[in-house]
Amino acid sequence: MSKRALSTSREENFPEWYQVVVRDGDMAETSPVRGCMIIKPWGWGVWERIQAELDQRIKDTGHENCYFPLFIPMSFIAKEAEHVEGFAKEMAVVTHHRLKNEGGKLVLDPEARLEEPLIVRPTSETIIGDAFQRWVKSYRDLPLLINQWANVVRWEMRTRLFLRTAEFLWQEGHTAHADRADAMAETMRMLEVYREFAESVLAMPVIAGEKPANERFPGADNTFSIEAMMQDGKALQAGTSHYLGTHFAEAQNIQFQSAEGKLEHCHTTSWGVSTRLIGGVIMTHGDDDGLRLPPKIAPRQIVIVPMLRDKPEDAAVIDYCTALEKELKAKGIRALVDAKPVKSAEKRWSWVRRGAPVILEIGGRDVSGGNVTYMRRDRLRDGDKVVSHAKTRDAFVAEAASLLDDIQASLFQEAKVRLEGNIVAGMKSFDEVSAYFGATETDDEAGGTFKGWVEVPWARPEGGELEAIADKLKALKLTIRNAPLGQGKAAGKCIFTGKPAKESILIARAY
Amino acid sequence: MSKRALSTSREENFPEWYQVVVRDGDMAETSPVRGCMIIKPWGWGVWERIQAELDQRIKDTGHENCYFPLFIPMSFIAKEAEHVEGFAKEMAVVTHHRLKNEGGKLVLDPEARLEEPLIVRPTSETIIGDAFQRWVKSYRDLPLLINQWANVVRWEMRTRLFLRTAEFLWQEGHTAHADRADAMAETMRMLEVYREFAESVLAMPVIAGEKPANERFPGADNTFSIEAMMQDGKALQAGTSHYLGTHFAEAQNIQFQSAEGKLEHCHTTSWGVSTRLIGGVIMTHGDDDGLRLPPKIAPRQIVIVPMLRDKPEDAAVIDYCTALEKELKAKGIRALVDAKPVKSAEKRWSWVRRGAPVILEIGGRDVSGGNVTYMRRDRLRDGDKVVSHAKTRDAFVAEAASLLDDIQASLFQEAKVRLEGNIVAGMKSFDEVSAYFGATETDDEAGGTFKGWVEVPWARPEGGELEAIADKLKALKLTIRNAPLGQGKAAGKCIFTGKPAKESILIARAY
Repeated sequence: MSKRALSTSREENFPEWYQVVVRDGDMAETSPVRGCMIIKPWGWGVWERIQAELDQRIKDTGHENCYFPLFIPMSFIAKEAEHVEGFAKEMAVVTHHRLKNEGGKLVLDPEARLEEPLIVRPTSETIIGDAFQRWVKSYRDLPLLINQWANVVRWEMRTRLFLRTAEFLWQEGHTAHADRADAMAETMRMLEVYREFAESVLAMPVIAGEKPANERFPGADNTFSIEAMMQDGKALQAGTSHYLGTHFAEAQNIQFQSAEGKLEHCHTTSWGVSTRLIGGVIMTHGDDDGLRLPPKIAPRQIVIVPMLRDKPEDAAVIDYCTALEKELKAKGIRALVDAKPVKSAEKRWSWVRRGAPVILEIGGRDVSGGNVTYMRRDRLRDGDKVVSHAKTRDAFVAEAASLLDDIQASLFQEAKVRLEGNIVAGMKSFDEVSAYFGATETDDEAGGTFKGWVEVPWARPEGGELEAIADKLKALKLTIRNAPLGQGKAAGKCIFTGKPAKESILIARAY
Repeated sequence: MSKRALSTSREENFPEWYQVVVRDGDMAETSPVRGCMIIKPWGWGVWERIQAELDQRIKDTGHENCYFPLFIPMSFIAKEAEHVEGFAKEMAVVTHHRLKNEGGKLVLDPEARLEEPLIVRPTSETIIGDAFQRWVKSYRDLPLLINQWANVVRWEMRTRLFLRTAEFLWQEGHTAHADRADAMAETMRMLEVYREFAESVLAMPVIAGEKPANERFPGADNTFSIEAMMQDGKALQAGTSHYLGTHFAEAQNIQFQSAEGKLEHCHTTSWGVSTRLIGGVIMTHGDDDGLRLPPKIAPRQIVIVPMLRDKPEDAAVIDYCTALEKELKAKGIRALVDAKPVKSAEKRWSWVRRGAPVILEIGGRDVSGGNVTYMRRDRLRDGDKVVSHAKTRDAFVAEAASLLDDIQASLFQEAKVRLEGNIVAGMKSFDEVSAYFGATETDDEAGGTFKGWVEVPWARPEGGELEAIADKLKALKLTIRNAPLGQGKAAGKCIFTGKPAKESILIARAY
C-alpha cells in the first residue's frame, strides 16, 4: 500500500492536515457548543497520561493539589485592573440561576437574575489569591505551594481543536513566598519541570526562555515559556511560568508576619500547561499517515491485530494474541488485542492513524512459527512501502520495553534535529528578517514554504520603543517568542535599535 | 488528655459537629462564591484516591473515559421535557461572552449577548446523547460504554460542604445498548461496582436497591441506588444507576441498524457518584476527635511525628523518622514525616482531626531502643484516655500493611454493625412508623434522638396513590430510600394500602 492513510498531506495544506489527523486519529471533535470540543477516548487517554506524568512531577517538587470554584465574582475580576486590560475580557458570564417554562417554552426567569454576575474562570489568580489571603498569616506558612487541575473558559472567536478552544483543560500552579529570591527560584523550577516533561514525556524539544515585556502575563514581573517548533515552522508556546512580584499580593492583601515581626506582602508565582500540549504533540510528531504518539503518552503502546479469516484456525490466532497481550501487560506495557469484528486491514490503518507506537499483525503463520510481525509507527515506511519486521515471539516480548524506549528516543531526536536545524542566526538587520519570512500575506490556511525561527540580538527595548517593534513584527505575522536561557554573552548590535545587544531573542510565526 | 479534639460532639449537635470536622480536618471550606466550595489539599487527596480506585473499576468493566463540553445549549435542555420538570430548572445560565469597562466600571457588554443562552451542565445526558446519535450507526457500535469525570452545577439554595453544593465533582457514566436486557445488565453491573467500591474502599456499608417510582431520575424507567446510614441515623444516597429505556434515545434520535437491517432505538443507562461520597465518609467514620479515614483513601496512611526538643539529639530523631518513612514507602505505604516547625502535641492533634489512620510519635527513647510508639486512629481512646502502642521498629515495619488492613476492616465492621442494628422491621402500620420517628418537628439542626431506618412491606402502589404516600411521609420528613435487592418473597400486607405486599422498602430521614 503506497497510498497514505490521510486525505491530505502536511505539505499540501498543513492546517487542513492537522484537522484530518485530529479527526481520523479519533482524538477529538467539535461539539454543538461554539468553540467547545469533545475529547474522545483516544484523545482523553493521551491527556490522562499527560496528567499522570506531570502531576507526579508537580507533587515531587512539593506542591499539593486543591480545587477552587468554577465561578469568580465579577468584583474579583474588576479588582485586577491589569487583568481587565489583558486577555480576560472575553469571558463566559453567568447572569441567571433559573430557567422557567413559559407557555411551553423554556426562558430565562427574570426573577432569578444574580445580584452580581459570575464569570466562568478564565484563570484562577483572583479566587485563589483570596484564599491565600486567608491562609497565609506568618512566615511559617510559606512557601504555600498549590496546584489545581481544572477546566477554564476564554471566549475565543476563532477556535481550533486542542490549540485554541473556548473551554480547555489545564493545570494551574499558584504559589506564595516570603521574598523575591524564593519566588523566582520557584518560577524557574517549574519552567524546568515543564522543559524536562515536554522533552522526556512528549518527546517534544523546546527552548526555555524569558518572554519580552509585551508578551508577559498581565500583572507579571517576568514571564518565562517553553517554545516548541511545529512541522510548519511555527512556534507553539507549550507552557508558561510567571513571577508575579507583589502585584497580586497587594491587590488581594496577601500578607505575612516575618520572623522579625514585620507585616510584608508575599511574592507570588503562577504556571500552567493545558490540553494545547496535545495539539503540540500532533504537530510535532504527526506524519502523512496520521498521528505518531510517543510511547510514554500512548494510551495503548502495542496493539495486536489478529488476522482472522472466519475459519476454525482463528481460535488459535486469538489465543496466541491474548497470551501475548498478557505477557506484555505483565511487563507493564499497555498492550491491547483489537478483536473487533472489522477487517484486519481496516484495523491496521485505524491504529496507524491513531499513532499506536507498535502495531502487530498476527496470522496463522506467525502462530505456527512462534513469531510476531510488527510495524514501528515512527518508521512506518521505507519510501512509500510499509515496513514490516519479524521476530520470534520470545525475543519480541523480551525486547518490547526497549523497543518502546527506542521509539520514544527516535521521535525526540527527529524533532530535535528539526528544531536545531531551523533556527537561523546571524541576521544583522530587520530587513534580513523581513526578507527571510517573505511577503506579509502568507496565509495560515495555505501551504506556504517552510520557515523556521530566527535568532537575533537585541537591546531589550521597553515601553513605546518595544511597542513599535511589536507592531512592525505583527505586520509580518511575527512575534518574539523568548530570550533563550543559558545563552552566552550577547554580541553585536540590536537589529531594531542599533544599540549594543543585551541578549538574543527568537522571532517566529506562532500558534 | 481527656478533652476531645473538637469543640462539639456528635451527640450535642450533629450538623454542627459535621461542619467542625470538615473545617478542623482541613477538608474543605466555603468560598466567596455562593454555594461553591474550596476543596483543600487533604480533602482533595481523599478525592484523588476515590477517583483512582473507582476509575480502575470503571475501566475494568470495559468503559472508556471522554470529555464533553461544560456548556449545554438551552435548546438541548428544552428537548428533554421530562428533564425540565425535574431537578434541572435551577441552573447557572450563561447569557453574555464579554465584559467591558464603562467609565472605569466593569459591566456586561450588551453587544455580547449570546443568541442562545448556555447552561452550565447539571448533568450531561443531553450533550452526550447528541454525540451518541452521531457515533452509533450499527449494532456493531454497541454497546457504547462511556464515562466522564467532570464538574457540574445545580443551583442549590441551602448548601452544605460536600453534601450539597452548587458546583460539585462527579463521574457520570453513559452507555447505549441494543436491547433492554443488555442495558439492564449494565445498570445492575454498575450498581454492584458502586456497592463493592463503597464497602471495600470507603469502608461504608450500603444497601443496594431500587428506588420507588416517585424517586426516579426524570426520564428513567428504573433507578437504583446504594444507601448508607450516617451516624445520626439518616440515609445518604451514595450512588445511583439508571436504566433509561429508550426515552433519551427517542428524544435524541439515537438509532442503530440491527443485524437484521432494522432501524431501532438504543436502550441507554447512566450512573454516577460525586464528591458527596466524602460527606458520607465523614458522617460514617468521624468521631468526637475528628475524621477517621479508611486507609485506602487516606492521602497519608502513616504519619510520623518526631518529638523534637531543640537539642542536638533532634538530628538523630529526624534521621530515624526519615529512614522509617523510606522503609514504609518502599512497601507501598503512603507515609510522611511531619517535620513542620510546630509543637509535636499540636501536630499529633492535627493528624488526629484529619483522621490519619496511624500516627507515630518518635522520641529519643524510641530511637535508642529501636522502637516506635503509635496510635491507631480508629481506636484512639480507651474511655477517655488516648491509647499508645509500642513495637520494635522492625516488627512495626513488617506488620504495617496488615495494621492498615485491620483498620480498614475494623472501620467497616463498626459501621456495618450500626447499619444492621438500626433497621427496624416488623411494623404493621403507618402509625407504627409514625410513632417510631416521633413528632414531625424534629429539627435537623438540633440533637434529637437517634432513629435508624424502618423496613416495611408494601404493594408498590403507583400514580396518585404513591404521591399521597410520599406526601404523608414528607410530613414526617421521611422518604422511601429503596427496595433492597435480593430480598426474599414479600410477606404480609402493604402498610399503606392494606393490599398484599409485593416487596419490602426502607423508610428513613435522609440527606
